Order: sequence, then C-alpha cells, then structure tokens
Amino acid sequence: MAPRYTSIVADLPSTIPFVGPETDERTFGRPYKARLGANENVFGPSPKAIKAMQDAAADIWMYADPEDYDLKGALCAHHGVGRENIVFGSGIDSLLGVLVRLLVEPGTPVVTSRGAYPTFNYHVNGFGGRLETVPYRNDKEDLEALLQRAREVDAPLIYLANPDNPMGSWHEAEGVQSFIDMLPENTVLCLDEAYIDYRPDIAPALDMNRPNVVRMRTFSKAYGMAGARVGYALGEASLIGAFDKVRDHFAMNRVSQAGALAALLDQNYLAQSVAKVETSKARIADIARQNGLSPLPSATNFVTIDAGGDGAHARALVVVLKERGVFVRMPFSPGEDRCIRISAGTDADLDILADILPQALEAL
Amino acid sequence: MAPRYTSIVADLPSTIPFVGPETDERTFGRPYKARLGANENVFGPSPKAIKAMQDAAADIWMYADPEDYDLKGALCAHHGVGRENIVFGSGIDSLLGVLVRLLVEPGTPVVTSRGAYPTFNYHVNGFGGRLETVPYRNDKEDLEALLQRAREVDAPLIYLANPDNPMGSWHEAEGVQSFIDMLPENTVLCLDEAYIDYRPDIAPALDMNRPNVVRMRTFSKAYGMAGARVGYALGEASLIGAFDKVRDHFAMNRVSQAGALAALLDQNYLAQSVAKVETSKARIADIARQNGLSPLPSATNFVTIDAGGDGAHARALVVVLKERGVFVRMPFSPGEDRCIRISAGTDADLDILADILPQALEAL
Repeated sequence: MAPRYTSIVADLPSTIPFVGPETDERTFGRPYKARLGANENVFGPSPKAIKAMQDAAADIWMYADPEDYDLKGALCAHHGVGRENIVFGSGIDSLLGVLVRLLVEPGTPVVTSRGAYPTFNYHVNGFGGRLETVPYRNDKEDLEALLQRAREVDAPLIYLANPDNPMGSWHEAEGVQSFIDMLPENTVLCLDEAYIDYRPDIAPALDMNRPNVVRMRTFSKAYGMAGARVGYALGEASLIGAFDKVRDHFAMNRVSQAGALAALLDQNYLAQSVAKVETSKARIADIARQNGLSPLPSATNFVTIDAGGDGAHARALVVVLKERGVFVRMPFSPGEDRCIRISAGTDADLDILADILPQALEAL
Repeated sequence: MAPRYTSIVADLPSTIPFVGPETDERTFGRPYKARLGANENVFGPSPKAIKAMQDAAADIWMYADPEDYDLKGALCAHHGVGRENIVFGSGIDSLLGVLVRLLVEPGTPVVTSRGAYPTFNYHVNGFGGRLETVPYRNDKEDLEALLQRAREVDAPLIYLANPDNPMGSWHEAEGVQSFIDMLPENTVLCLDEAYIDYRPDIAPALDMNRPNVVRMRTFSKAYGMAGARVGYALGEASLIGAFDKVRDHFAMNRVSQAGALAALLDQNYLAQSVAKVETSKARIADIARQNGLSPLPSATNFVTIDAGGDGAHARALVVVLKERGVFVRMPFSPGEDRCIRISAGTDADLDILADILPQALEAL
C-alpha cells in the first residue's frame, strides 16, 4: 500500500515551475555561450559582498542567527521600518509559499494575471487554492480587472508584480497606490517588487500600518545574489508576525546573511550595477531593432521583445537561440507569448547575441 | 478587518522551535565563551569545502541548479542509490516540513516520542496534525511503544531519530530494521539520521524499494556545515518524487552545493573530524564525572549528562552555565529533563567548561 498523501497532494501533478539552464546544458552536452534567460544579474554582487562571503565561509559550522539580527537591522535603517516589519526567506519563492500557506485553503480563490509569475501559481495550486486570472492589457497587468475579479470572487489574496515579470512593464507609484487604496480590507495584496531596485521611483511609499499589503523584496536581482537565496517581506507587524508561525526559522544561510549585509551597505556599487544593466538593455533593444524585432519598454533587468509573430513563432525562436548557445526564456500566456525575454548581459554576452540572433531568425 | 488566515494558521501560536545563541548573546550583551549548545560541529567542514565555497562566491549571481545534479550524482555514488531516490532541502528542517505537508491534514495522527525533535512537532502542528507521543524508555526511544501507538491511532506518519537527539541514545541496526519490518505498510517512517555519520554501523541497510521509509541526512552535523543548509532525503522513487510536487525547487544555495560536494568527497577529513568529536566527548564525560554528574552513552556529537536532580535543577544549571558564558541546552520532557546536553567542542571550549561547570554547580 502507498503512503497516504493528503487529498491536495494526491491531486497535484509533479511539476517544476522552471527548468534550469543547467538541465538544458546537460541535454545539449555543452554550456551556454550566453546565459540570458533567468533574469540573473550577470554583473554580480559588490566585491565587498563576495569578500564577506569568503570571509564567512570558515564559520559555516554554525547555524545562522534565526533572528537575522544584523541584516534585519541594516534593512530597517535602509527602509525606515521596524524589526517587526521584516521577515526573511530563502528567496521570494520561499516567502510566496509561506504567504500562500497563511491564507489559502482548498478552494480559496486567489487572483493574479494570466501569465504572471508561475512560482506563485505553483504555491497556490500546492495548497489547493483556485487561481482566478485576468489577462494582461497592453502588455501590462490590468489593475482594474484584478481589483474587479478580487471583489467578484471575494479573494483573500491577490498578486501583483511591479515591475512585472515576464513583460518588463510597470505601473507608476500613483497607480499602485490607488490600487492599494481600493483593495478590499480583507484582501491581502502580495506586491512582488523583486525588480524594484531598478526603478525605486515606481514603488509606492512603504506603509507599515496596512495589514493587507505585503511587499516582497530580494537580493537576487539588482544586488546580484540569486544563488544566495535571500528574500524578505515588508509589512504590517501582525501580518509579518504570522510568517513566524510556520516558516523555517533556521533556513537562512549564514554566508548569505553576511553577503547580503555587505551588499546592502554598498549602495554605490548597486547604483553602478543598475547603470550597467540600463546600458545593456539599451543595446539588447538595439540588437532587436536591427533584426526587425520590437523591444518593449522595461523597468527590470531584462528586455521583452515582440518577435513579430505568434506564440509558435516565438517558441521556435527561443528553441533555436538555445540550440545555438543563447539561453533565453519567454512569456507563457497567449498574446504575451508573441515575445521572447532577454536578460541584461555583459558586452561579451551581447556580442554573442548580436551574432546569433540574425542566424536564428534566418534559420526559422 | 484582518487578513483571512486559514483556520489552521489562525489557531497556531507564534512559536520558534529554538532560540538561537545569538539571541542570548544580545540579551547578555556579550558573546558566549564556549558555544556548545546547538550540536554544531566546531571542527568545521573540510578545508576543501571552505575553499570550494570561497571559489564559488563570485558565481553567486546565478541561481543554483534546481536538479542539484553534481551533488546528487556524488551522493548516488556514495550511497549506491539512483537519482530518483534523493531530494534536497534547506536542511532536514525544511525536508521535515515538506514530508509533513505531504501526509498531514487537520486532525491527522502523527506518532513521535515525547521530547523528541521539536521542529518536527512544529511542522506537524503547523499543518494541523495531532501529535501522538509515547515516552522514552530508559532514555531511548521506545520502538515497541511507537509501533503500538502507530497501530492504535492508524498513523500515516511516524518519527524516529537514530541516533536520538536530545538523549544521544541509539538502537542498533538490527533493532531499527526490525522496527521497519513491522511498520504498517501505509505508515511512513521518517527516520531522522542527522547524526548517523558518527555511527554509520547503526544504520540499517538502505532499501530504496520500500515506499514507506524516508531517511533524512544532512551536511549540518559530521560534515560541519550547519550554516549552509544542505539536507537530503533518501527513499523510494515515488515517495521522493512526491517532494517535487510542493518543494521550493530553487531553494538551494549555489555556494552550499559546491561546498557540500567538496565535503562529501573528502571522506578522510570526515573520519578525522569524527575522531576529534569522539575525543572531545570523552573529555566532556570526564569533566562531568569529575563534578559528580553522570554522562550517558552517546552515538552523536554531544553528551547528554544526568545532572543528578530533577528538571528544575537541570534548568537552573543550564541558566547558570549560560550566564557564565557556556551555551548548552537540555531535553524538554519530564524525566529526560533531569539532563543537560553539551556538544563536542575544541580543547579551548572544554577548558572553559572544566573551569565553569564546578563554579556553576557551586552557585546553585
């Protein structure tokens, strides 16, 4: 007889939100020439963060401080919030899982955009929730439609990414603030701001008194530490306190804590890195245009590019690019899937892109 | 209005399975002189593992391979199992959470020993399960009583640690194998072998064909990498595959993957570290005896010591030791709480213990 899985688990498929580029590399039998698909920050973290991690490596025999005291203190100063307003997780992915667990029971309606972040959906499905999606509108998340659907289905949880992944689009701070102001009081907004360090001007002011808004932040993107798994949630004290009821208190990596702290304290490096990404994105857009494709505006570290055809065309382009050594990804949902998505890269990465993109289009 | 927490979450207290030593240090306003309470391995990982982590630090901008391909391959060779038999998590703590999630719904009975690993209980409570505990017997987990209770309550999940924490006691491989053989087929045994690298001879042979046994292993103890958060579960393919339905696929730290691989490949260092721990434990036992206390036999990296009184006496001793700079912990449950628990330390750590223990006893 088999283990007695819960009814939720018994009904779940074995899925993985994303296939890693290493899996492709093993399939192809060779490494990618340019790794431009996972929205990583190829410019990496501050050298001070690398140094801090190297220095901390010998202390790895100790568990990390489960209160994340030093890093939390630095973030409190950075954001002007209290310790009770911050909770850490192994990346935003992990925090999304905890947030969903807090609010979603079998059948609970959860509102998001069709084609938005798959890992959020993975967690909603994983706790038996019912995804209620609304389409993008002009390649942006449709704030009005999201709100309306949340009201219609009386959703306890709604997801919005600003800036958006995979489209790179955004709403200005005023629009998001207005969205927050119109939320039903018992609907929690998960505001995923993974990319906000690229455009801090579009973040509404932090308000730690609203019990129904949680802001997700990360060291994976602009801080260049995706492999370190340091994400955090900002929110009102009781909501943040609820995370402590179920999270893994000892899940943080001790070396990562040291690295994130050093990265946070080097805001000068962050600004340089953000500028490099802007330059890289401009060149990606140029390369796209030179090949007859249409780059979309982006507030992130990637450029989403209209490949000029339908989803099948874009999917074929992604496959050919990958076969020729350029790792990219693309949106999943019909309409948006006319696009491919290319992360900022080094000059060398973009030389390769400039070389291979026309070959790939020619080959189609 | 408040967020609409699930009924499970609404009923949960805000608890933390363990308070970290850093929290104490902030309370006392000074660092511990000897950190001997968290069963960490003060001898640390192989220098090759430290070097591998330092070398990997600059690659932290990349997400880790979510298939953990290289580390998994090395562990497959080490254990003689297939890739389908291993799944990773951010420490055993995280894997316990996933396993509980797979099998526990509100009201599900789960059997464990009273006073066994609190983080397992934390997860069972966190998913609304009902803990069914049986007492220790002569400071060991009571295999017969555990089995009987599992049958009585028809439990889908039963927990056993071998060697045991917090008592340091163990059952020989034959006893555990017999326990496995007598399990109801639809009762999954979570066999927590966090400390097994200190006594591999007491591990029953790995059998990857039993769908109702999962073995929990870690790089946190003998491999000396508690802060790296690398645990793994070994089991039959379909049970291990179920983890993939809900786990965080990208939760592994890239630097930790590299470090764990290097640590695994340096079995010579592991053997030296295990020997150092044995020497340290012998000295801890001597120090205990010299102070009129009774060390218990231990198959782990710590020594549990009968403090010669009741729970109140042992608790007072722990407090005084901590106040004087020696971080130790103790069992929670009545009967076992006559003991304190001291992790193996360096010579310098034990010099401090030898100095402070008599003072602490004197002060009581």
